Amino acid sequence: MNADLLSALQAQRIETPSWGYGNSGTRFKTFAAPGAARDIWEKLDDAAEVQRLTGIAPGVALHIPWDEVEDYAELKKYASERGLHIGAINPNVFQDEEYRLGSVTHPDEDVREQATAHLLDCVEIMRQTGSRDLSLWFADGTNYAGQDDLRARKRRMRAALKRVHGALPDGSRMLVEYKLFEPAFYATDLFDWGAAYSHCLAVGEKAQVLVDLGHHAQGVNIEQIVAFLLDEGRLGGFHFNARRYADDDLIVGTTNPFELFCIYAELVSGANSADDLTRRTAQNVAYMIDQSHNIEPKVEAMLQSVLNCQEAYAAALLVDRDLLREAQERGDVLAAHRVLTEAFKTDVRPLLRELRGELGLPLDPIRAHRESAYEEKVARERGTQTGGGGYPVREKVRS
Amino acid sequence: MNADLLSALQAQRIETPSWGYGNSGTRFKTFAAPGAARDIWEKLDDAAEVQRLTGIAPGVALHIPWDEVEDYAELKKYASERGLHIGAINPNVFQDEEYRLGSVTHPDEDVREQATAHLLDCVEIMRQTGSRDLSLWFADGTNYAGQDDLRARKRRMRAALKRVHGALPDGSRMLVEYKLFEPAFYATDLFDWGAAYSHCLAVGEKAQVLVDLGHHAQGVNIEQIVAFLLDEGRLGGFHFNARRYADDDLIVGTTNPFELFCIYAELVSGANSADDLTRRTAQNVAYMIDQSHNIEPKVEAMLQSVLNCQEAYAAALLVDRDLLREAQERGDVLAAHRVLTEAFKTDVRPLLRELRGELGLPLDPIRAHRESAYEEKVARERGTQTGGGGYPVREKVRS
Amino acid sequence: MNADLLSALQAQRIETPSWGYGNSGTRFKTFAAPGAARDIWEKLDDAAEVQRLTGIAPGVALHIPWDEVEDYAELKKYASERGLHIGAINPNVFQDEEYRLGSVTHPDEDVREQATAHLLDCVEIMRQTGSRDLSLWFADGTNYAGQDDLRARKRRMRAALKRVHGALPDGSRMLVEYKLFEPAFYATDLFDWGAAYSHCLAVGEKAQVLVDLGHHAQGVNIEQIVAFLLDEGRLGGFHFNARRYADDDLIVGTTNPFELFCIYAELVSGANSADDLTRRTAQNVAYMIDQSHNIEPKVEAMLQSVLNCQEAYAAALLVDRDLLREAQERGDVLAAHRVLTEAFKTDVRPLLRELRGELGLPLDPIRAHRESAYEEKVARERGTQTGGGGYPVREKVRS
Amino acid sequence: MNADLLSALQAQRIETPSWGYGNSGTRFKTFAAPGAARDIWEKLDDAAEVQRLTGIAPGVALHIPWDEVEDYAELKKYASERGLHIGAINPNVFQDEEYRLGSVTHPDEDVREQATAHLLDCVEIMRQTGSRDLSLWFADGTNYAGQDDLRARKRRMRAALKRVHGALPDGSRMLVEYKLFEPAFYATDLFDWGAAYSHCLAVGEKAQVLVDLGHHAQGVNIEQIVAFLLDEGRLGGFHFNARRYADDDLIVGTTNPFELFCIYAELVSGANSADDLTRRTAQNVAYMIDQSHNIEPKVEAMLQSVLNCQEAYAAALLVDRDLLREAQERGDVLAAHRVLTEAFKTDVRPLLRELRGELGLPLDPIRAHRESAYEEKVARERGTQTGGGGYPVREKVRS
Repeated sequence: MNADLLSALQAQRIETPSWGYGNSGTRFKTFAAPGAARDIWEKLDDAAEVQRLTGIAPGVALHIPWDEVEDYAELKKYASERGLHIGAINPNVFQDEEYRLGSVTHPDEDVREQATAHLLDCVEIMRQTGSRDLSLWFADGTNYAGQDDLRARKRRMRAALKRVHGALPDGSRMLVEYKLFEPAFYATDLFDWGAAYSHCLAVGEKAQVLVDLGHHAQGVNIEQIVAFLLDEGRLGGFHFNARRYADDDLIVGTTNPFELFCIYAELVSGANSADDLTRRTAQNVAYMIDQSHNIEPKVEAMLQSVLNCQEAYAAALLVDRDLLREAQERGDVLAAHRVLTEAFKTDVRPLLRELRGELGLPLDPIRAHRESAYEEKVARERGTQTGGGGYPVREKVRS
Repeated sequence: MNADLLSALQAQRIETPSWGYGNSGTRFKTFAAPGAARDIWEKLDDAAEVQRLTGIAPGVALHIPWDEVEDYAELKKYASERGLHIGAINPNVFQDEEYRLGSVTHPDEDVREQATAHLLDCVEIMRQTGSRDLSLWFADGTNYAGQDDLRARKRRMRAALKRVHGALPDGSRMLVEYKLFEPAFYATDLFDWGAAYSHCLAVGEKAQVLVDLGHHAQGVNIEQIVAFLLDEGRLGGFHFNARRYADDDLIVGTTNPFELFCIYAELVSGANSADDLTRRTAQNVAYMIDQSHNIEPKVEAMLQSVLNCQEAYAAALLVDRDLLREAQERGDVLAAHRVLTEAFKTDVRPLLRELRGELGLPLDPIRAHRESAYEEKVARERGTQTGGGGYPVREKVRS
Repeated sequence: MNADLLSALQAQRIETPSWGYGNSGTRFKTFAAPGAARDIWEKLDDAAEVQRLTGIAPGVALHIPWDEVEDYAELKKYASERGLHIGAINPNVFQDEEYRLGSVTHPDEDVREQATAHLLDCVEIMRQTGSRDLSLWFADGTNYAGQDDLRARKRRMRAALKRVHGALPDGSRMLVEYKLFEPAFYATDLFDWGAAYSHCLAVGEKAQVLVDLGHHAQGVNIEQIVAFLLDEGRLGGFHFNARRYADDDLIVGTTNPFELFCIYAELVSGANSADDLTRRTAQNVAYMIDQSHNIEPKVEAMLQSVLNCQEAYAAALLVDRDLLREAQERGDVLAAHRVLTEAFKTDVRPLLRELRGELGLPLDPIRAHRESAYEEKVARERGTQTGGGGYPVREKVRS
Repeated sequence: MNADLLSALQAQRIETPSWGYGNSGTRFKTFAAPGAARDIWEKLDDAAEVQRLTGIAPGVALHIPWDEVEDYAELKKYASERGLHIGAINPNVFQDEEYRLGSVTHPDEDVREQATAHLLDCVEIMRQTGSRDLSLWFADGTNYAGQDDLRARKRRMRAALKRVHGALPDGSRMLVEYKLFEPAFYATDLFDWGAAYSHCLAVGEKAQVLVDLGHHAQGVNIEQIVAFLLDEGRLGGFHFNARRYADDDLIVGTTNPFELFCIYAELVSGANSADDLTRRTAQNVAYMIDQSHNIEPKVEAMLQSVLNCQEAYAAALLVDRDLLREAQERGDVLAAHRVLTEAFKTDVRPLLRELRGELGLPLDPIRAHRESAYEEKVARERGTQTGGGGYPVREKVRS
C-alpha cells in the first residue's frame, strides 16, 4: 500500500451515535435487544468496543436530554479513558408534550422560547464537553394544508437559528439538517438542502448543512448535493445510513453500496480540489452514523456500519483521478464512467486487512467481535429492557 | 334530491377503527391527547358520537389484543345499545417480542404457530361478535438483502393463510392487506396487491384483497387497482386514509381529494356494472377508516374522515354515466375527462345538508360536535394519558 | 361578486406557449393532430382564439429557434393586432448535434460558447419583441456516474448565467428553471430549486427561479417551495402543467386540483403580505403554461388549462384569511385546514360565469370553442402534418 | 475455477436488441451517432461484434416492423452465418397513427383488430425465424381520469392476449411486459406485474410475465417480484437496463449494481430449487437487454451491458448457499446478509478473464473492441444519419 493511501485510510473518522447502542424501533414496536445499553455510560462502553476493533471511530455523538448527566467533565473523562471523545451534540426538541405543533416554529412564542432555550443549553454542553459541532434536527412541520402559515414558520426558524448561531463558541459550528418528511406529513420546515442552505447563508459563517442519506425524495442524486455544497463551502457533515423507501435508518451501504462510493468519491475529489474553500470544507466534514437498529444486534450493526464506510472510502481513494479527468475532458462517456466503476469493483478487503495489520488492529473486526463474546457479556450484565414503541422517551427536563 | 341519490347516500357505510380513538404517534413521539379513549368501552362511546352525528358509521373495527375483553357478548350488547355493531376483527401479530423476524413467515416454526394460533383465536372472536370480516395485516418482512429466503417466506405466508381460510365461518371473509414497506425496509412479504391477490386465488373464495390508500409506491394509480380487482371479483375492502409520502395515515381526502373521488367513481361504476361478479363484489366492499391522529383531536378527526368519504361518494354518484360512456366511446378525451371533473367540481355540501335534514341528523356535524362540548367532557372524565412513542403496546397475552 | 374579487379575477394572466399549439409527443411517437399549427403565425392565431374565449391569456411565449422569424417587429405587430403580446423568450440549447454532452456546461469550451451566444441572441430578441422575461431551461446533465465533473459543470453553469445576466436590458429578468431529471438520467446540472436559487443569488438581482410543476421528485411540496422563494424574493415564474409520475406535461390541474389550489393560495397570501419584498415578488410572478398535448386537441387543451388556472385562482381568492390566521394562531389544526378546504370545495363556476358576463366573454368558453368549429376550420386549412417522434426538430441555425 | 462455475458461466446467455444498435433518443432530441446501424442487416453485424467479443450474446431480438424484411429465411441465414440466432419477436403497436388512444385496448374495435392482426403477423414471423418468444409491450393507456373505462380496457386486453395465445406455436411463449407509466400518464393498461400475471393466468400456460428493470415505481423490490414469479412458475424473461428515475433505459448495472446482483442471486437460487416448477421456470428465463443509448457509442454500450450482466451473474454464483441457509434459519440477520455481500464484494474480473482464456475470447473485450477500430470502420461506411426526435418511426405497413 502506498504511503498516501495508508495515511488517508489512517486518518478516516466515523463518529458513532450514542442512541445507536440503545433500543430503538418503529412506530409499531420496539423489540428489546438483550444487552442494549441503558445509559450514556454503557453507550460509551459499546462505542469503545467499536473503536477497539476499528480504530477509526473515536468520536461519540450525544443526544440531549437522553444522555444528560450531572457532570460533563466526568463524562468527558470517562470517554477519554476509553480512547473516545465527545462528538456532536444533538438537542432533542421533539419529545416534550409542548412540541405537538412544532418547537422553534411553533405558533406560540412561549414554546419557541422553550425550544430555543434548550438549544442554548446544548451550546453550553458543547463547551463543557469540548464538542465542535451542534447538530440540529427539527421535527417541526405541519400535517395538513392550512394548518399553519408556511412563511411565518420559515421566519421563526430563521430567528431561532440566528440566536443559536450568535451563541456558538469560536471554532465551533452548527450543522443544519433537513428532511423531506416524517414526523411531519404535509410540510417539514427544513424540507430540503436548499432550505437548510438558505438559512445557513442568512445566519452566518458557522452554519453548515448536514446531509442525512435517508432524508431525500426518491431519485434525488445525493452526491450531486454533496458536490454543490462543497463548492459553496457549506457542507458541514453527514448522517450516514441506508434506505430504500423513506427514512429507513438501515446500516449504511446496505441498499446501494455504489451510491455510498459515489458520495465518497465526491468527498475525495473535494479534498483534493485546487479551490481553497472547497478543499477546506471537504477536510472539515463531520462523518456521523445515524441509524436505527431495530432487529439486529446493536454493537455488531455499528461495527458493520463503520466497516462499510471504510470500504467505500478505500475504493474512492483508488479512483485514478488523472485518467478520469482526461476521459471527462475528451467527452468519452463510457471510459470516464469505467474509471469510476473500476475502483468500485476492486475488492478492497485485502487492502484493509493490510491496514489493520499495520495499525495492530484485528484483521477481521466482525469475527473478532463475535469471538470476544462482548454481546453475550453485556446481555448477561445488562439484561433485556422491554419498553414502549418508538424512540426513547425523554423524562421532563425543565421544571 | 332524487330518490336514487337519496337511497344511495342513506346506504353508505364507513367503519371506524377502535384504535383511531386512542393515542397514537410516530416513532419519535406519541403526544398525549386530552380525553383520548383508554379502553374499548370508551372507544365505543367515541364511535357512538361519530355515528350520532353522521348516521353512516355504525360499524367499529376491533384490534386484538388491544381490544380484548372477557366477554364479547357484553361488548356486542354495549355496542348495540349505542347503535353500533362490531366490524372487522384485526389480529395483532407484530408486537410480541417473538415477532422480531416475522410472524407467519418467521423462520422458526414455533413462532409461526404462535402467530397462526392468534389468527385462529380472532376467527373465534368473529363468531362471538358476529363480525363478517377478518382483516389481516402483517408486518412480516426483512430489513436486509439475504436476511431470509424470499420464496420460503412466501410459502410460509400461503400456508398460514390457507389454515386461517379453512377456519372461517360460512358467510365470512378474510381481507388480505398489502403494504409496500414499513416496518420492513428491504422486503415486505405481502408487498403489493398482486402478491395479496395471488395468495387469495390460491387459498380460496373467502379471501379478498384489502386496499389501504397509504400502502402504495409513489405514483401508483389506486383507482385502477380497484377497477382491476372489482373485475376479478377480489376486492374485499379499504383502509381509508391519506398520504403524501409514505404510510402517513392522515385524514382521508386531505392530500388529494380528487383521487378519493376517482376511487369512489370506480366503485359506483362497479356497483352499477352489468357483470354479476363485479356488481356483487362492489356491493360487498368493506369501507374502513385506518388513520393515526397524531396531532389532531381524535373524535373530530374521525368525524372529518367520515364526512370526507361522504362528500367524495356523493360527487361520484353525480357522474353522468351515459354522457361519460358516449364520450369514451367516441374517443373524445377531454369531454370524457370533463364529465368526471364536472361532478367533482360540484359543491355537494348543500345536497348533504338536505340528506341530513331528511334523516334528522345535525346539518353541520362538525359544528354540532364542537358545540356539544363532547371533547371537553371526555377530557375531564378521562384525563390525559402520557405514554411511550408509537402505537399501543400489547401486554403479553398467551401465557 | 365584490369589487376586489372582480378586479383580482380580471387582472389574472396566464401566458400560453407557442409550442403548445404544434404537434408534440413522447419519445415513442408524435401523433399528428389535424390542424396543429405549423409556424409561429398559426400559433399566434391559435393563441388569439384562446384569448378571445378567456380574456386572461394575452401573452404568448416564444421558443427560439422554433419560432425564429426574419422580422420580430412584424411578429410583434401581428400579435398586437390579435390582442396578444410576446411573452417569455425561451432559448433552445438542447437540439443542436453539438449539445450531446451539454450546452453551457459542456466540457468543450467551444460548445459552451455556441450555447451562450444563442442565449445572448435571445436577449436581443427580447429587446426586439418587448419581452420582459428570458426563460432558461437547460437539458444539461450526465447519464452515468463519472461521465463529467459535477463541480466543474456547476461552475460552467454559473459563468454562463453571469454573462447572460450582464446582458439583460433594464427592467427585464432571467428565469432559471430546474428539473429533477430528463433528458439527463444521472445528474441534471440545475437539479432542484436550491441549485437554481443558489445560482440566482450569485449572478444578480435580475435572476429569479422558475418553478415547473412537473420537475420535482415525488412527494415534494411545491407550495412550500413557492412560499420559501416568495419570502426570499426569488420566485420569478411558473411553468404550469400536471403530472402523476415524471414530467408528464399534462393539462394543469388534472391530476391533483387541490395542489394547484394550494399553490395559488400561497401566491394570494404572498400578494397580500405586509412584507414589501414578498408582495412585490408575488405581484411580478410570470404564470406560464408549459404542456405537451400528445393525444388531445391542442387549442381546446390550452383553453382547458387556462380555465383550470382561473378556477384555482378564484377558489384561492375565497379563502377567509382572517379566519385562517386566527385558527393557525390558536393551533386549531383542523379548523385551520377547513378554512382552506371550504374555499376549495366552493363551486366557483357560477362566479366565473358572472365574471365573463361582465367582461363580455362567452359564458362557457369550451362550449363556445366547440360551437365555433375553429378546430375543424384549421384542420381543413392546415391539414395534418405527420413527422418524427418527440419534440420539433430545429433546423441548423448558425452556419 | 471449479467445473460447475465454469459450466454455469459458459451457459449464460444475454440477448441483445436490434434497436439498441440504431439511433435513439429522448422526446427532446435524438443525437446522431456516427456509424449507427441503419437496417437490420447492419444491426446483425453489430450484434455479431458483441458476440465475437463476449461469446454469450448470440441471440438478437427483432422489432417488427422496424426490422421487417421480405425474406426471413434469408435473415435467419445471415444471422446464422455470423454465429447468431433470432431471439424474441417484438411487435410494434404504438406508432401507427391509429394508436393514438391505444391498440388492443382502443375503444374502437377496428383499431383493436388492426393491432391484433399485427400481433398475429408477428407470430407468423416467429415461425419463419424459429423464434421461441413473442415479447409483448403495449403503450396502451390513458392520460386523463375518465378518458376511457378502465374495466372495459382490461377486458379488451384480455381478449387480445387470449387470441394471440391461441395462435402460438407449440413450444413457444408469449412474454407479457408491464410498465408503470409512459407513454400513458394517467393509467397504463398493463400497469404492474400483478396485472400481467393475472392476464397470464387467465389466457394460458404459454403466457409468462416479462420484467423490465425500469418499469417499476420507486422503491419497488424487483428481486422479490422475481422470486414470487419464479415460485408461481410465471417468470418468462427480462428486459435489462438501469434507471434512477423513470424508464431511463441506461446501461444495465450502472445505477445500482447491487440490485442487479440481488436479482441474479434470486435466479441462481431458483435454478437450484428443489421445486420442479421453480427450477424449470428459472432455467427458461429469457435474458434480454432493452436500452436506449442516447449519448454513448452503441456497440460499446451493448458490450458493456453484456459484461455487466456477466459480472453480476458470476458474483451471484459465488454466494455460499449452505452458509446462507444456515444463517437464515438461525435468524442471524447480519451473518446472512454478509454471506450475500461477501459474494458481491468479490472482484470477479480475474475469474472472467480466466473464463475468456479458456473459451478463446479476448481477455478484455472493451479494449479489444476499441483496438479493433470497429466503431471507426462503421462510421466511415455508414456515415451519420440525422433524424427526428424519439424512437425510429415506422413507415406505414399495412395498406
